Amino acid sequence: MSAEQDFLDWLHQAIPLSQAMQVRDLSFDGKSVSLSAPLSPNINDKGTGFAAATSGLATLTGWTLLTLWLKERNIEADVMIAKSELSYLAPVRADFRAEANFSDENQVADFLKKIERVGRARIPIRVYIGQSTAPELILQGDYVAVRRTDRQ
Amino acid sequence: MSAEQDFLDWLHQAIPLSQAMQVRDLSFDGKSVSLSAPLSPNINDKGTGFAAATSGLATLTGWTLLTLWLKERNIEADVMIAKSELSYLAPVRADFRAEANFSDENQVADFLKKIERVGRARIPIRVYIGQSTAPELILQGDYVAVRRTDRQ
Repeated sequence: MSAEQDFLDWLHQAIPLSQAMQVRDLSFDGKSVSLSAPLSPNINDKGTGFAAATSGLATLTGWTLLTLWLKERNIEADVMIAKSELSYLAPVRADFRAEANFSDENQVADFLKKIERVGRARIPIRVYIGQSTAPELILQGDYVAVRRTDRQ
Repeated sequence: MSAEQDFLDWLHQAIPLSQAMQVRDLSFDGKSVSLSAPLSPNINDKGTGFAAATSGLATLTGWTLLTLWLKERNIEADVMIAKSELSYLAPVRADFRAEANFSDENQVADFLKKIERVGRARIPIRVYIGQSTAPELILQGDYVAVRRTDRQ
């Protein structure tokens, strides 16, 4: 738990909007990540989750999955999102939690080979908010990692 | 300018994250909207725009276009984003501005007819951050409006 709290503390300091969103409850099991946020700092004029906040937590959760997965392998890399498709399926009416998974486990080995060989690789990640069977939001994103040692 | 500042003041009060992002400089000419934000509250660990903040400003700018366009016609409606596709083309390295336009002017008349007839209609909106010829981010979104008088 302490490594997870350290990461959250670092996140809040490095990314002020993550602190404004009160991003919390990081959990990482080696293949998926979840992050939560309370509704109140992320509310909109209709009393539900502000789209920029719910999609923002989803985007951040996918980024955190790839960041922690690389860290676990001692690969120093910058992680960025390249593109995403978002479906807003239902309003978010309470505190919310996003869970990120690699879209296809078979691509993970190829991603690892490629980042080790050429220093840059892309991988699709799927994130949802709410219940997996009836999510309120789905993000399908492509994330890119670039090894720090291979840059300039 | 005063109506635009009133709208921004309302936005900051109704959506606390828009205040944390310091969303400002609203401009609306009847067919497009722009909104800006400073980099510093929206920065990430790499010193560039946090993806959740840049995509969030884009999402909000599209929503603001449809909201103000309906307001101008005295149509009371809730506006929501239904889905979006985001392309993150380059890092955002300074204060940033998003501009939203209807994707296809021909669809605007149909949208108006439909919202007046059935109380609910959907329209695609395109938003970019940066220069239109070399944007840093593009959002292509579908927004839905639901007339308030037609709901329960």
